[in-house]
Amino acid sequence: MSGAPVRVGVVGLGRLGRRHAQNLAYRVPGAVLAAACSPVDEERAWARDSFPATRLYADYAELLADAEVDAVWLVTPSALHAQQIIDALRAGKHVFCEKPLSLDVAECERVVAEAARRPHLQATIGFMRRFDPSYRDAFERVQRGAIGRPFMVRSQTTDKNDPDGFFVRFAPTSGGIFLDCTVHDIDVARWLLGFPRAKRVYAAGTIALHQGLRESGDVDNGVAICEFEGGSLAMFYASRTMAHGNDSGSEVIGTAGAMTIGRTPALNRVEIFDQHGARSECTPTFFDRFEEAFLHEALAFVAAVQGGGESGGATLADALEATRIGSALRASLESGLPVVL
Amino acid sequence: MSGAPVRVGVVGLGRLGRRHAQNLAYRVPGAVLAAACSPVDEERAWARDSFPATRLYADYAELLADAEVDAVWLVTPSALHAQQIIDALRAGKHVFCEKPLSLDVAECERVVAEAARRPHLQATIGFMRRFDPSYRDAFERVQRGAIGRPFMVRSQTTDKNDPDGFFVRFAPTSGGIFLDCTVHDIDVARWLLGFPRAKRVYAAGTIALHQGLRESGDVDNGVAICEFEGGSLAMFYASRTMAHGNDSGSEVIGTAGAMTIGRTPALNRVEIFDQHGARSECTPTFFDRFEEAFLHEALAFVAAVQGGGESGGATLADALEATRIGSALRASLESGLPVVL
Amino acid sequence: MSGAPVRVGVVGLGRLGRRHAQNLAYRVPGAVLAAACSPVDEERAWARDSFPATRLYADYAELLADAEVDAVWLVTPSALHAQQIIDALRAGKHVFCEKPLSLDVAECERVVAEAARRPHLQATIGFMRRFDPSYRDAFERVQRGAIGRPFMVRSQTTDKNDPDGFFVRFAPTSGGIFLDCTVHDIDVARWLLGFPRAKRVYAAGTIALHQGLRESGDVDNGVAICEFEGGSLAMFYASRTMAHGNDSGSEVIGTAGAMTIGRTPALNRVEIFDQHGARSECTPTFFDRFEEAFLHEALAFVAAVQGGGESGGATLADALEATRIGSALRASLESGLPVVL
Amino acid sequence: MSGAPVRVGVVGLGRLGRRHAQNLAYRVPGAVLAAACSPVDEERAWARDSFPATRLYADYAELLADAEVDAVWLVTPSALHAQQIIDALRAGKHVFCEKPLSLDVAECERVVAEAARRPHLQATIGFMRRFDPSYRDAFERVQRGAIGRPFMVRSQTTDKNDPDGFFVRFAPTSGGIFLDCTVHDIDVARWLLGFPRAKRVYAAGTIALHQGLRESGDVDNGVAICEFEGGSLAMFYASRTMAHGNDSGSEVIGTAGAMTIGRTPALNRVEIFDQHGARSECTPTFFDRFEEAFLHEALAFVAAVQGGGESGGATLADALEATRIGSALRASLESGLPVVL
Repeated sequence: MSGAPVRVGVVGLGRLGRRHAQNLAYRVPGAVLAAACSPVDEERAWARDSFPATRLYADYAELLADAEVDAVWLVTPSALHAQQIIDALRAGKHVFCEKPLSLDVAECERVVAEAARRPHLQATIGFMRRFDPSYRDAFERVQRGAIGRPFMVRSQTTDKNDPDGFFVRFAPTSGGIFLDCTVHDIDVARWLLGFPRAKRVYAAGTIALHQGLRESGDVDNGVAICEFEGGSLAMFYASRTMAHGNDSGSEVIGTAGAMTIGRTPALNRVEIFDQHGARSECTPTFFDRFEEAFLHEALAFVAAVQGGGESGGATLADALEATRIGSALRASLESGLPVVL
Repeated sequence: MSGAPVRVGVVGLGRLGRRHAQNLAYRVPGAVLAAACSPVDEERAWARDSFPATRLYADYAELLADAEVDAVWLVTPSALHAQQIIDALRAGKHVFCEKPLSLDVAECERVVAEAARRPHLQATIGFMRRFDPSYRDAFERVQRGAIGRPFMVRSQTTDKNDPDGFFVRFAPTSGGIFLDCTVHDIDVARWLLGFPRAKRVYAAGTIALHQGLRESGDVDNGVAICEFEGGSLAMFYASRTMAHGNDSGSEVIGTAGAMTIGRTPALNRVEIFDQHGARSECTPTFFDRFEEAFLHEALAFVAAVQGGGESGGATLADALEATRIGSALRASLESGLPVVL
Repeated sequence: MSGAPVRVGVVGLGRLGRRHAQNLAYRVPGAVLAAACSPVDEERAWARDSFPATRLYADYAELLADAEVDAVWLVTPSALHAQQIIDALRAGKHVFCEKPLSLDVAECERVVAEAARRPHLQATIGFMRRFDPSYRDAFERVQRGAIGRPFMVRSQTTDKNDPDGFFVRFAPTSGGIFLDCTVHDIDVARWLLGFPRAKRVYAAGTIALHQGLRESGDVDNGVAICEFEGGSLAMFYASRTMAHGNDSGSEVIGTAGAMTIGRTPALNRVEIFDQHGARSECTPTFFDRFEEAFLHEALAFVAAVQGGGESGGATLADALEATRIGSALRASLESGLPVVL
Repeated sequence: MSGAPVRVGVVGLGRLGRRHAQNLAYRVPGAVLAAACSPVDEERAWARDSFPATRLYADYAELLADAEVDAVWLVTPSALHAQQIIDALRAGKHVFCEKPLSLDVAECERVVAEAARRPHLQATIGFMRRFDPSYRDAFERVQRGAIGRPFMVRSQTTDKNDPDGFFVRFAPTSGGIFLDCTVHDIDVARWLLGFPRAKRVYAAGTIALHQGLRESGDVDNGVAICEFEGGSLAMFYASRTMAHGNDSGSEVIGTAGAMTIGRTPALNRVEIFDQHGARSECTPTFFDRFEEAFLHEALAFVAAVQGGGESGGATLADALEATRIGSALRASLESGLPVVL
């Protein structure tokens, strides 16, 4: 751990923002939680109690004007990401931003172009699975040739059913299930397969439970095939309706073996033997499943800011490709036809 | 076990034919292995040693003329199935035939029509997974509502890689990976989902290892999506290149739960703990995996012949639908476009 | 399968006797169910319906007088085993007898001596785990050196709790939990460790649920340590009170690895994902778990009778050693002291 | 997190000491790594580089004299623990000490008596499994009645074989396998069973690989039975010779169910499918397995110091009972007789 501490400003203090703020404040050695920003009074009040030494802002522009902030950490609504990243870069700040970069390919490209002019600034999108210890281990085994040449990924993001259907109200702005959930799987597939570009995608879906999605053209269960240049393949599954928990995992198949990551979404190392059989309870949410990943991505980002190297996180270009593929999946779902990229 | 013994004639005495003959001779109480037929001298010699009391024929027509044969059991090359079934039905025999019914939809329809005229004769196609005890258990749980309304199936047929690539030489006549392998998964999906009809399919594939498949337009790894009328979905995966064994299994997802069948292709109940970790060796071939299924389908067929009821096996209509979907998958693989059925 | 069919007479037609009779009648190629014997009218009535060609006897002596019976298959109360084996051997019959040989060491020795005079007759005790395909596979791996030198076995026989406590009424004659349940584990341990002789044992136990056992000096959960000559060890666990099912399994530990057999008592290859987590239902009874083993032991016994070789089953000497150790465990439970053998 | 920061002095900077120091420095919000102590120059040099603001001492007495240290954290050789705890308590410091408290029961009692005079000081022994999230979860389920009345624990501490046999050289001072390894299992058993006192123990063992243990009267594989007052039971297994990794885990059995903790020592959530089967690599050492536990025990200790409550960690009385039982197991191993406590 060398170099001066990285002074971070977290923007957005909802559930996930708080998690990031706590990690940066207490669990990332080279980081200081210098500032936090939220337009919501009660969120700032929470921050005031939790982090007495942290400067608080209601307005993002004020945080950007704080010269003692080196990096901003965006945990804001997706629709704001692109412009907030551009603003941060223009203010000379490193940027970490939660996924997705943007739901709009052109807007993604605008951010990529802006960042290209400032190569000394870190800009990372929070595809946190790359930092989950198990995903990381699988990635490194693939790199070492443990499964020969990887040619296929199957990956899924499947949430426990929320009977209240919160996400139904969120559907008009989420970009739909593929841009909201499957972007994670798209990034995982490209990362494990050596960052190929997609050449053709096809998607289908169904509404199993949440009829309210119909009016925004969305589904609660979606499936997709993605063909990459060079001949590798991916299959994706996204669901909002799992009974047993958040069951997000992946499989990478190669010419000499295969690996699964997170095949059984076990809560922990406890197994129960009772009238229901031999069983593991499951991780209820992605928070429970990826808690360590959120920490490790912060550690890696801060180390990269200090050291000037790569964080191993998703670049803006990766995020652009994920949006490009996710958007094509959405278009395929609507048209019933494959989309050639 | 009531009724007169069913006198069966097995046709085709290759590896799988022998397995069926042994089951019918020794392990199916109501059956008698009355006759066997193969044009290959050494196969008949094997049968003579194994079943001294069984009448042997080199010619299928002679077996059909044997009045003391009640049912024929076809384990012959796929290209012969359709006509052999028709001939058997015309000779007044019950018929069990290995999958696939035919690679050609029109030919399937011809067989269905022929059988419709002889409703008193059993005619079953050997989609043996329906008789595997685990598949059967899952099916019954679905029927009892254990997972709510099932709306999606993921199913795969994946063979251990054969470095000799026997199947490459077989590719020109196999119908391709979807008609050869995925027909099993198609039948499983329809069976678990309540026999819906397909409305649109899409397929893609890649050659991971066996370049020789290129000239017959086939792939060694194929993926597919099938949308059914009523909104249910299936995802299929077929592979010829697994490193660890035959890993054929399925998952059915419903509104209140999900079930997998055969998720880990463990050879048996032994787990090994050594320098390779905590591990189970895997079933090398579908024979090892589905040994019990082959026996149970024979028990069920014979019981149905004796009792006049349903065997629970795949009807000719099911086999027609499997061929219809499999052919569409092949067409989709070739065209890169979905096929609307 | 060479040689004349073995004509078997099954003695005892309770639940397990019926299972054996069905196997011998329908599933063991070289066997004929020539005769069956039970003093219970309704059991003979069941046999008459099930096996019309089988000769039925109410009296064991009559069955032994049937010259067209080559082998007797004893599924009778334990207290009768020893004398019935002796009578059968004296009548010139091969004998298969359910475990235990006897609860009394001296009586065991008497049977061993009797059999020694008739080495041409097969005499096997039904420690069926040796014929379970998974146990068999583990045994063969040990033989091939897969785990180096095996030096320890952990083995358990644990039944699903029967709230009616049938076994409580049975306790006064069962010999107690170690002679009734742990004899299986004793035989497994010796078989996997190369048939060492025990030199010292220690046992303890508790009554978790069935207070009625107290008056017969028995427990519903027992644990034990067995030290063998040569330095190998075994740990045993027996229980009558499992909530999840019959969970009988073993582990063998060697200098280069370990193996478990039946570590998770999964009913089959179905895994369920629902509000209870990711789970397998469990085998309710030893019948469900060891169904295949009962068949394979019959196949092996009949083959040995036909071929004159070894069946691989437990010899009378093995059964004597199991009783010797089981009796010592019982004595240790009563005294609180180790028993030196 | 309320209260003033707890200023901790870590004593002993070997492998485990460094881990504790790093946790306290960076990952425990309410703690400050105020001081560290080691007689080894290079260990202090490492600390100087790693923690520039931490005061370093070569001598324990100097650290105790540092008025700005609130708590000492002992990661020193076992033989020093008892006196160092007493010295710390007399200096008015809270104490956290790695297990074991002492290999000598009388010495344990002396420490307990000393601490009883200073009830305002925390004194905790590092039985870290209580803080492993999976053990904690199992404990809480037991508390909530999830398995009825718990009456039996099976627990093991089994290390991956070290071909260099480091522990052989350590054997003369380790107290033997039961006091070195099984003390963890003893504490786990008592914790899960409601802190019963032992009434009788029996142990046996064997040397599978490391003959050098013979001269110190130790074994590399040990087994034991512990009977508690009230009728509950424990079985223990300790090994130095596992081929697959550190496989430390436990099982608690109750009248309505059972739970295992850490049944498969999987390294992480990756499963590999290759020529060795379907497998998980295993945790090589207890460090890899219990990394989180070491952090959580530090969090709990610091919170208890700040808040004045219970940490949930092992008290000195618990550690005394573990030593009492462990010593009795050693005596039983030597005598071949049970030890009544």
